[in-house]
Amino acid sequence: MRVEVFTVDDMPRINEGDDLARLILERVRLEDNDILAIASSVVAKAEGRVRNLSEITPSAEAYRISRKLDEDPRFVEAVLEESCEILIESPFILVRRPDGHVCVNAGVDRSNIEEGKIILLPRDPSASAARIRSRIYESTGRRVSVIITDTNGRAFRVGQTGLAIGTSGISSTRNWVGLRDLFGNVLTITNEAIIDEIAGFANLMMGEGDGGTPAVVIRGLSLFEDVDAFHEIIRDEHEDMILRALRR
Amino acid sequence: MRVEVFTVDDMPRINEGDDLARLILERVRLEDNDILAIASSVVAKAEGRVRNLSEITPSAEAYRISRKLDEDPRFVEAVLEESCEILIESPFILVRRPDGHVCVNAGVDRSNIEEGKIILLPRDPSASAARIRSRIYESTGRRVSVIITDTNGRAFRVGQTGLAIGTSGISSTRNWVGLRDLFGNVLTITNEAIIDEIAGFANLMMGEGDGGTPAVVIRGLSLFEDVDAFHEIIRDEHEDMILRALRR
Repeated sequence: MRVEVFTVDDMPRINEGDDLARLILERVRLEDNDILAIASSVVAKAEGRVRNLSEITPSAEAYRISRKLDEDPRFVEAVLEESCEILIESPFILVRRPDGHVCVNAGVDRSNIEEGKIILLPRDPSASAARIRSRIYESTGRRVSVIITDTNGRAFRVGQTGLAIGTSGISSTRNWVGLRDLFGNVLTITNEAIIDEIAGFANLMMGEGDGGTPAVVIRGLSLFEDVDAFHEIIRDEHEDMILRALRR
Repeated sequence: MRVEVFTVDDMPRINEGDDLARLILERVRLEDNDILAIASSVVAKAEGRVRNLSEITPSAEAYRISRKLDEDPRFVEAVLEESCEILIESPFILVRRPDGHVCVNAGVDRSNIEEGKIILLPRDPSASAARIRSRIYESTGRRVSVIITDTNGRAFRVGQTGLAIGTSGISSTRNWVGLRDLFGNVLTITNEAIIDEIAGFANLMMGEGDGGTPAVVIRGLSLFEDVDAFHEIIRDEHEDMILRALRR
């Protein structure tokens, strides 16, 4: 198998109301079965998910946590408003978002935005992915998969990796249940999180900082499926041993 | 940026003593800066890291845990012998290995091996990677990076992904500290775990089961560095909030 992965170069700075699908299609010719990975930050900006810190009034809880972290209480307030559960308060804020996604700072970001502003995650990243996929189909007739990516830390290991926070047109996992290996044994690895494996590599291609590029095309994997299945990657909270340990 | 990722096809079944570098070089022409990802299972087989279950005598602890899991006590014994700390005993065994790598079943695997046998992880995966890298340099004069991959579950999310369990010729992370974003803000994301982002995508390309291929080449990333730096990706155990929560 041979796969090509390339960045969508020379994208402009994104502002509220920008048509991301159009901006991407002006720069690359997509083909059927391409996977388009887009950084959540530009999706959020196009959707106006930007707040001025000066317009945020911190709650008592935001003040309390901000003192533990030596952090701007308005930033903490924005994090709390995006969260449904706080798992760790310090030395960083690890939260569960309403869609079940667990991440630091609820994904609220101060990078790649003017000082004094913050970028929230898209309100419903899979809905954003579905809209972009539809726009591409309407414009070009091409059936592509869309993955919205974000950068996340993880347990046990140093460094952040890209993860999928919303998808359209691709299954979340590839199911190996019942398949047999080279020797006829039933496989014990049953479910591969393909959207995260793709998001991680796309994240590496995107880079960070002022040389970064917010969109990447993966060509040759042929994983297109006409589904919106992102939620399947969120582990049931009652079955998550690590979530339970953090709640103790 | 444009990257090519391709599988090393038609690899034979691997046995103890096989020269993996030679088998790969017979099938692909490597170039400077290529990244070669190899599944830990074939590295382990080439190194004779295979045990017969019939030759394992379970300890009392292996019997105790095996009853909770309805598992073969000889398999559990092999897992315990590969581990220095048990973090979760059931419904699955999550351990810390002597090199700090945290994984289910200590990476001991019953897939892709004859019934009655198990595959351990390579004894020192980064040393394995360094040997393969040296062999390639000696044979071809090419400077490549080598990543040994394994498949791992993770907290909060469904599905396994590929991770690096040993490397040679590549840094573990890409450091963004002090870099500025498009707007001149110092980046808050400081460290990207590039070896895991690469290992994940390589894992997807490898597949599982009898159609799987154990080696993948990533061409175009230019991340070669003459270092053996795998250990840098293992988080200091005293700083790991989730490890601490599991130990409570």
